[in-house]
Amino acid sequence: MRDYVEIGIGREARKAYRLSDISLVPSRRTRSSGDVDTSWHIDAYTFDIPLVSHPTDALASPEFVIEMGRQGGLGVLNAEGILARHASAEDAVARVVGAGLSDGVLDTLNTPLAEFRRANRDTTKELQALHAAPLDHDLLAERIAQVRDSGVTVAVRVSPQNARELAPVVIKAGAEILFIQGTVISAEHVQRGGEPLDLKEFIGSLEVPVITGGVYDYTTAMHLMRSGAAGVIVGSGAVSGYPSVGVGVPMATAIADVAAARREYLDETGGRYVHVVADGEIHSSGDVAAAIACGADAVMLGRPLAQATEAAGRGSYWESAAAHPRYPRGSVEQVDVVAERIPLQQVLNGPASEPYGSTNLVGGLRRIMAKCGYTDTKSFQKVGLTVGR
Amino acid sequence: MRDYVEIGIGREARKAYRLSDISLVPSRRTRSSGDVDTSWHIDAYTFDIPLVSHPTDALASPEFVIEMGRQGGLGVLNAEGILARHASAEDAVARVVGAGLSDGVLDTLNTPLAEFRRANRDTTKELQALHAAPLDHDLLAERIAQVRDSGVTVAVRVSPQNARELAPVVIKAGAEILFIQGTVISAEHVQRGGEPLDLKEFIGSLEVPVITGGVYDYTTAMHLMRSGAAGVIVGSGAVSGYPSVGVGVPMATAIADVAAARREYLDETGGRYVHVVADGEIHSSGDVAAAIACGADAVMLGRPLAQATEAAGRGSYWESAAAHPRYPRGSVEQVDVVAERIPLQQVLNGPASEPYGSTNLVGGLRRIMAKCGYTDTKSFQKVGLTVGR
Amino acid sequence: MRDYVEIGIGREARKAYRLSDISLVPSRRTRSSGDVDTSWHIDAYTFDIPLVSHPTDALASPEFVIEMGRQGGLGVLNAEGILARHASAEDAVARVVGAGLSDGVLDTLNTPLAEFRRANRDTTKELQALHAAPLDHDLLAERIAQVRDSGVTVAVRVSPQNARELAPVVIKAGAEILFIQGTVISAEHVQRGGEPLDLKEFIGSLEVPVITGGVYDYTTAMHLMRSGAAGVIVGSGAVSGYPSVGVGVPMATAIADVAAARREYLDETGGRYVHVVADGEIHSSGDVAAAIACGADAVMLGRPLAQATEAAGRGSYWESAAAHPRYPRGSVEQVDVVAERIPLQQVLNGPASEPYGSTNLVGGLRRIMAKCGYTDTKSFQKVGLTVGR
Amino acid sequence: MRDYVEIGIGREARKAYRLSDISLVPSRRTRSSGDVDTSWHIDAYTFDIPLVSHPTDALASPEFVIEMGRQGGLGVLNAEGILARHASAEDAVARVVGAGLSDGVLDTLNTPLAEFRRANRDTTKELQALHAAPLDHDLLAERIAQVRDSGVTVAVRVSPQNARELAPVVIKAGAEILFIQGTVISAEHVQRGGEPLDLKEFIGSLEVPVITGGVYDYTTAMHLMRSGAAGVIVGSGAVSGYPSVGVGVPMATAIADVAAARREYLDETGGRYVHVVADGEIHSSGDVAAAIACGADAVMLGRPLAQATEAAGRGSYWESAAAHPRYPRGSVEQVDVVAERIPLQQVLNGPASEPYGSTNLVGGLRRIMAKCGYTDTKSFQKVGLTVGR
Repeated sequence: MRDYVEIGIGREARKAYRLSDISLVPSRRTRSSGDVDTSWHIDAYTFDIPLVSHPTDALASPEFVIEMGRQGGLGVLNAEGILARHASAEDAVARVVGAGLSDGVLDTLNTPLAEFRRANRDTTKELQALHAAPLDHDLLAERIAQVRDSGVTVAVRVSPQNARELAPVVIKAGAEILFIQGTVISAEHVQRGGEPLDLKEFIGSLEVPVITGGVYDYTTAMHLMRSGAAGVIVGSGAVSGYPSVGVGVPMATAIADVAAARREYLDETGGRYVHVVADGEIHSSGDVAAAIACGADAVMLGRPLAQATEAAGRGSYWESAAAHPRYPRGSVEQVDVVAERIPLQQVLNGPASEPYGSTNLVGGLRRIMAKCGYTDTKSFQKVGLTVGR
Repeated sequence: MRDYVEIGIGREARKAYRLSDISLVPSRRTRSSGDVDTSWHIDAYTFDIPLVSHPTDALASPEFVIEMGRQGGLGVLNAEGILARHASAEDAVARVVGAGLSDGVLDTLNTPLAEFRRANRDTTKELQALHAAPLDHDLLAERIAQVRDSGVTVAVRVSPQNARELAPVVIKAGAEILFIQGTVISAEHVQRGGEPLDLKEFIGSLEVPVITGGVYDYTTAMHLMRSGAAGVIVGSGAVSGYPSVGVGVPMATAIADVAAARREYLDETGGRYVHVVADGEIHSSGDVAAAIACGADAVMLGRPLAQATEAAGRGSYWESAAAHPRYPRGSVEQVDVVAERIPLQQVLNGPASEPYGSTNLVGGLRRIMAKCGYTDTKSFQKVGLTVGR
Repeated sequence: MRDYVEIGIGREARKAYRLSDISLVPSRRTRSSGDVDTSWHIDAYTFDIPLVSHPTDALASPEFVIEMGRQGGLGVLNAEGILARHASAEDAVARVVGAGLSDGVLDTLNTPLAEFRRANRDTTKELQALHAAPLDHDLLAERIAQVRDSGVTVAVRVSPQNARELAPVVIKAGAEILFIQGTVISAEHVQRGGEPLDLKEFIGSLEVPVITGGVYDYTTAMHLMRSGAAGVIVGSGAVSGYPSVGVGVPMATAIADVAAARREYLDETGGRYVHVVADGEIHSSGDVAAAIACGADAVMLGRPLAQATEAAGRGSYWESAAAHPRYPRGSVEQVDVVAERIPLQQVLNGPASEPYGSTNLVGGLRRIMAKCGYTDTKSFQKVGLTVGR
Repeated sequence: MRDYVEIGIGREARKAYRLSDISLVPSRRTRSSGDVDTSWHIDAYTFDIPLVSHPTDALASPEFVIEMGRQGGLGVLNAEGILARHASAEDAVARVVGAGLSDGVLDTLNTPLAEFRRANRDTTKELQALHAAPLDHDLLAERIAQVRDSGVTVAVRVSPQNARELAPVVIKAGAEILFIQGTVISAEHVQRGGEPLDLKEFIGSLEVPVITGGVYDYTTAMHLMRSGAAGVIVGSGAVSGYPSVGVGVPMATAIADVAAARREYLDETGGRYVHVVADGEIHSSGDVAAAIACGADAVMLGRPLAQATEAAGRGSYWESAAAHPRYPRGSVEQVDVVAERIPLQQVLNGPASEPYGSTNLVGGLRRIMAKCGYTDTKSFQKVGLTVGR
């Protein structure tokens, strides 16, 4: 039975929980971190660590994506990002970071709010301008080939709107896993006078596994699974809270609901296991652990990786949605004001020399799993939970 | 069954929810923003967008009200505001904004609290002084005529106390919709030795539709509907939280309760649909969407519109109650310290170039409705809800 | 049925609510503020307004107490305060306010926290030193006589520890109502080897009505009522939250529980009505209204009155407990940094010219009661309540 | 019945509470502080006050530990801390405090966050470097002997990992009580290819009582009790919240659960009483009282003692976990920026001359117990509780 409250006469709302509402209860056994196996796989591709990088331009240069793969994770290129629109993506990203700033540095902590907001508006306009440039299919293919040539697994994100046009391009260029990813996705997009994407038919026509989302509820997740998705993304990567659009379900509840759909679909199909990738509210090892504890097989994350020296944003971070032409969401944050820029390897596997839990993400996860008494992510999905008052 | 707690032995309180407690759950379908129809109507008047501007002097010059109408919304003139007391309302408003400030600028973000409060007290006194001037019926008629001449729908607000005196004046001058609006209104105002306003008789005697409120509960809303109101306002437009008077019901609950009264009254009358207008806790597109999701047909809002270049306050905002002669509530805020002043058209319909969700209010609403799978406000009132911990 | 949760295996806790958790629901009628009667009485003494001033030295000079009475409220002298220990209480209070400050001014808003705390420690030491001086019975009698000569009702506070010694002194000097008030009081104080105060016998031996507290629960309140108290104080006046001692019940619950004891005792005695005075969490008109709505007949308050020009603290406020010799609680706050010093008459009855709800406390209360549809405090104790999420 | 919520379909979480969620309800009797007996005992050792100092290097020099004992509490040396690795521990600690600071002072309140974090990273690195030095058994024995020679009870902490190696060393050197303490401990540590510590056998082989933890749940606590522990530690001393690892149960719930295990084990064994020591969320007298009220026999605490002049950190505080080589948690805080450095005797027993409740910890506890009507900690474990909204 779900837990509902009546918010007003005849109008109910379901109680929902965030990852930060959750704590993990150690079991009667403890384990050693060294014995923890965090690996997972999609189709024939196996990954040592359950971390997928968000396809924002602030991270996803080919160099960054290659390093993610080398570290055992999965990096995702954005087929519709700056890197597919500007030959010199580095210069373009530098323009974003420097927009509106007298000396190229916006100290997010010590700038008056009004000035900070004015600078952010300029930055947003710069991002919008960069995204107004046309997509260059050759350039995109070149970026993908660069990753393919490195030997790591090649994952590319397209939007639902452009999936039909871009999927052939990116697969031909070498994409091995296709992400069809938007803020909110459904198996049935209805558009007056338009031709909806028949997701089932489309996925069936592709030769590569598809991971798609974001979704927030059991029913939509079931539809996407039945459409043939190899993985379903829960959430939309929102971390900054601007603006509070009020759409979506808090992550702990959303992940658990989609994991329930995975169980049901597994039973329905007699064994087809669709992976659940959580994308939102992930800031630290503890959040990664909480997401898995709620039922995720892996997590997609962005900002925690932005301190890596390999990240395209060179110390800045923004969500993909920050470049939306009419309704941008999320400002450009300068993460290196508070975090030290260090190699991605150290961000992921440590050792850490800061007390804030923002580095050694995988080491922290291993430690939490071990302390709670688990050595693999699948059984860790059953760890005891508490929620606060 | 309502959800009650016992706060102490023998004393119960109902659990109530704010709009910010609510999130919207996407359904299994998504739609296109372009297919969303946000129109609504009162009587014979149809509006493209479900936004009504609050009748504060900080917004409601005739010019602003005309532009609200041109953009598809509804602007409301305040028959008892500065514009009906001072021939040069512009100068008067300038005096409010500049009161107590050495150089006419009060940076609400970087001024020490003590100085800020002293300046606010001076501003409040200036507002009170401006409102102590007598109402000028000719001037009021002139303002109304200015709006009428523009061709947009003419809506004017009077207080319950002055409704009998002012309604003939404003209707004669051209008001097409009458707002009888106070902080808290009832169908039965009891005054010792006084002559109460018989709202039913009064509304029945008028030739224009009446929208009245604020109300907070089912029973009072039913009484107002039975008095013949075409629309009922839920809430009192409070945004700033000064002072926490503790009167009123959190908006998500209040809206849902009044929407239940609408359903009951519709059934009772065999088809008379009274519109529910939510006025409070509205800061962004997400809040507009949440208010409609709880049952509102339209929302009244103020501060989000104050960044419009057409707004009378020229970058400042205050609630109507800020001018109360004995018990003022709400300070004068300088919104242009944080928000860029832009044309009302852009505030309402974008495009936005800031990441805070304060512009493109209607675009944001369309996007939310579409992402949740709805194309009209009436069916959107049934979208799934969650409440946080 | 009370509302309990199990915090751990076999350990329960009752859910409890603060005044700030509560909102008041308007009823289907509204009233006029002018028709509201806020009077109440203790024994033969009637008061126009339900406000009693806290017996802190920061307020309670004879001059302040006399003005409270003239304004229709009840001021309480502290028989154990600075005014009973120092002939020149004004100089003593000035020493408190100036302690540790280079120029006698501590801007609580713009001083670095470390410096602020050092200054507070010096202030606390000064308070402790002033309270180390012996009580002077003649001086105390003189202070009481000053109030008596003014013609207002004379109320004096003694601690439970010193009640037996001081009660004869203060009653002989003219006290008409005796407050026996401590942080936590019971009808049965057990002390090893000591002689406990038999409250019932003691109250029975006095010729004046006794108001006593603080209490937090039904059972203790019943005991105090059966001891013959004319009034029971709920709470201990704590406003600042330093330190979070964790003793006591949140006020909305505590008031409602003690009001339930009042009803039970009224029934048990066939008509003896003991007054409930709420002392805690009161900052504004809204808080006064909420306390009455929960069941209080009157409220005791301190800090909101400290902006009065008649207040002894001359712009500063501290709780009585701030002078405790071994365990002081509550720092000295400079209220005039944020609030304008104005006559007590205006603090209580307005008009207000500030938007923060800190002045016109009684006007605000009348307004709230009228908007909710009530004209007397007794029936207002039944107003509908909501609690937030 | 536990109180569970469904966070998502098929996934439950137990509701859990923090100490700060709890308030204590006075009973119908009050007592005198002077009559309160706060003593407790472990085995043959009796302590006047129920406070145990956390074995962080920021506190636990031999001098500090001796003074804890003289004041009636229990100080714990860390067998794996700086004092067992560096002959001049004072100089080493001074290096921690001064690391990364231009002038040796880091004002935690007035330093920009970015600079503050950079300094903290340098401090963390210094701590890690100091802990990379090898353990010196002779030096350790010397430290222990210094405490033993003072005549106070000698308690020493070892980690579960090094217990087998270090226990003989520390017991031979004079340890009378052994703390086997880690962040999370279990009776059954499973390590692939390793040789787990059989806690039951190990404890049985020792001649001194063992106190072990941290634990968070009933089952693990039962296992530790059955292993022969004389005391069980609940929690891991976390106070700073960096990073939010999400492991562990909020303290009020965890303490109550472990106290339930104590009752069950007492029944199972026909009388063996295992002491429950709470280690976490303890900042003030009120927190100590709340921990005991939830079922603790004593509390372990750290930061509140760091203002003592005898504390090794000389005005700074850090948790033991702050020195972890790969995953440090908790920064170095400068407590003397806000708190006055005073003798430990005054920190524990007052008198206090500051209004923040950070001194006179035991006096505050006595006062709270007396006000609530209790004179010993065992019966105080039954005091009435409330939890806030």
